[in-house]
Amino acid sequence: MTNVKKFSKRAAQPLNPEELVEPLISGSRVALARAITLIESQQPTHREAAQQLLQQLLPRTGNSIRIGITGVPGAGKSTFIEAFGKMLVDQGHRVAVLAIDPSSSRTGGSILGDKTRMETLVKEANAFVRPSPTSGTLGGVHKKSRETMLLCEAAGYDVVLIETVGVGQSETAVREMTDFFLLLTLTGAGDELQGMKKGIMELADAIVVHKADGANEAPAKKTVSEFKQILHFIQPATIGWTPVALPVSSYKKMGLEDVWKTIEQFRKLTTESGVFEQTRSQQQKQWFKESVTDALISRFFASSEKKHLMKELEQQVAASELTVEQAVSKLFASSSS
Amino acid sequence: MTNVKKFSKRAAQPLNPEELVEPLISGSRVALARAITLIESQQPTHREAAQQLLQQLLPRTGNSIRIGITGVPGAGKSTFIEAFGKMLVDQGHRVAVLAIDPSSSRTGGSILGDKTRMETLVKEANAFVRPSPTSGTLGGVHKKSRETMLLCEAAGYDVVLIETVGVGQSETAVREMTDFFLLLTLTGAGDELQGMKKGIMELADAIVVHKADGANEAPAKKTVSEFKQILHFIQPATIGWTPVALPVSSYKKMGLEDVWKTIEQFRKLTTESGVFEQTRSQQQKQWFKESVTDALISRFFASSEKKHLMKELEQQVAASELTVEQAVSKLFASSSS
Repeated sequence: MTNVKKFSKRAAQPLNPEELVEPLISGSRVALARAITLIESQQPTHREAAQQLLQQLLPRTGNSIRIGITGVPGAGKSTFIEAFGKMLVDQGHRVAVLAIDPSSSRTGGSILGDKTRMETLVKEANAFVRPSPTSGTLGGVHKKSRETMLLCEAAGYDVVLIETVGVGQSETAVREMTDFFLLLTLTGAGDELQGMKKGIMELADAIVVHKADGANEAPAKKTVSEFKQILHFIQPATIGWTPVALPVSSYKKMGLEDVWKTIEQFRKLTTESGVFEQTRSQQQKQWFKESVTDALISRFFASSEKKHLMKELEQQVAASELTVEQAVSKLFASSSS
Repeated sequence: MTNVKKFSKRAAQPLNPEELVEPLISGSRVALARAITLIESQQPTHREAAQQLLQQLLPRTGNSIRIGITGVPGAGKSTFIEAFGKMLVDQGHRVAVLAIDPSSSRTGGSILGDKTRMETLVKEANAFVRPSPTSGTLGGVHKKSRETMLLCEAAGYDVVLIETVGVGQSETAVREMTDFFLLLTLTGAGDELQGMKKGIMELADAIVVHKADGANEAPAKKTVSEFKQILHFIQPATIGWTPVALPVSSYKKMGLEDVWKTIEQFRKLTTESGVFEQTRSQQQKQWFKESVTDALISRFFASSEKKHLMKELEQQVAASELTVEQAVSKLFASSSS
């Protein structure tokens, strides 16, 4: 893993994917970063090159544990990821951190610009930190983030931490591409939960009550036992796994080991039951299906007339002038497609 | 409402929708039943006639409160609907009851054959009870059920009770077409909830702890207060409305009034806040969008080659031979569509 090949930085735009395969597999972070940029590019020639690259790397993917991390505002996600990632690196793991931003307004790299807090992790040779800007649509979010994850796996990272940025749809998107989903919260759970999207609890395999140090330690432990009761009433996110609640202090490095032990236990249990592979296979099929549907929809609405007609028909349906079935017929009748 | 026109039963197959409009509006249950049969028919000529009929009736739709009802097995849904419906009829309401069955294996009417328990309600002049068999796909479930609901509204029913049959997807389907969603459960909530799909709680605007009579009365009240605590931790199904838990005995006619008062309060509050109309409008748009997507997908996969190719590509994606994007390209490249 340490025998990292030097990769020339001269080519600003890598047009030949072949050039990237070797250094990426050997662990060059520059090559990995460039491959991700290629994957995220919207240019048709780049897209094709990116897919060729990815295809060559596919046999080397899948060998990581994919951990999604979300949190209530102020829960200290970055601090947790920094401390948790550092601990894993010190144990000999190679850790990749991806951030997913569902809003398309930010450009590549700007997320890290906003929060350069993962300073320790960024300096580690066996860590790779990368924000993953979206390509606009939610479908785009899934696709590029998943592909970025696969690239990281091909580059030999055995732990991939995927951080959701913001709340809402990104949680579901991240849940659908990870093996294990972690929710970070703070003490005073009741109040906190009032403010956050409560449905997220149902996605979680574990809940970390963060900042459990100093005066917060005792209340955090109380919150953990409250959560344990509530988790009883919530449908488990993963078949055969009862969600776990844990107190953690990233500041005092307390509880980080327990989180990793929980994840290891989860992996062991779900691997033995077959749920681990089943879930991945379902996620893969779902990804393909969604991509086909997205492609169908975007091809159908490629023309602005179609888009316009859709809006018009929607109005007529809302005004009770047409039935839904009539509106659908009209939409399809209008074209050769 | 009582001036019901006599409608001739002679025509076994109503081919002219015009014939149905008048008697249906006037309140003929025979005309309504026949219109529903027409809507559920798969024959192309019937489908067109059905849509013409529905279009004519559209301006008369929307004037009911749409109540979805689901329950854990053994909760006594039919008993509740019978008692609740009877109370509403006695108060001067006109009540339609629809049952939605997500499995396509049953044929029209057989659900009622299974459970002819709504004997009192069926006899009421101002009640209409109808099972709604599905047309196979989940999309079909939505569509026909929604249209049946519209027909009932055009026929002057001001309360529509939509009962889910079975568990799983039907809850979401019914939630997406109703204003208010009611979950029936029994005392011993913890154990009961373990056995049911817990996610359903998140869909509910109210939870009824049923059979709260005799020895069950005290435990039911305890369960209600337990629910009140849990409901605090669950994201409300409707914006601005905190879900309510209530004890009810259909046998002793206890609590039925409270359920109706709760629904009236819900209607008042959400109408004033605009959430009522917003939700309906969103449901309508969503219905249209789903119908368009369904149509796109079914048109695309109309040929068996396409279906076969999809399966084949799915295998190749699973075997890491192709990337998802490459598989999508191949799927579209293979045809003229």
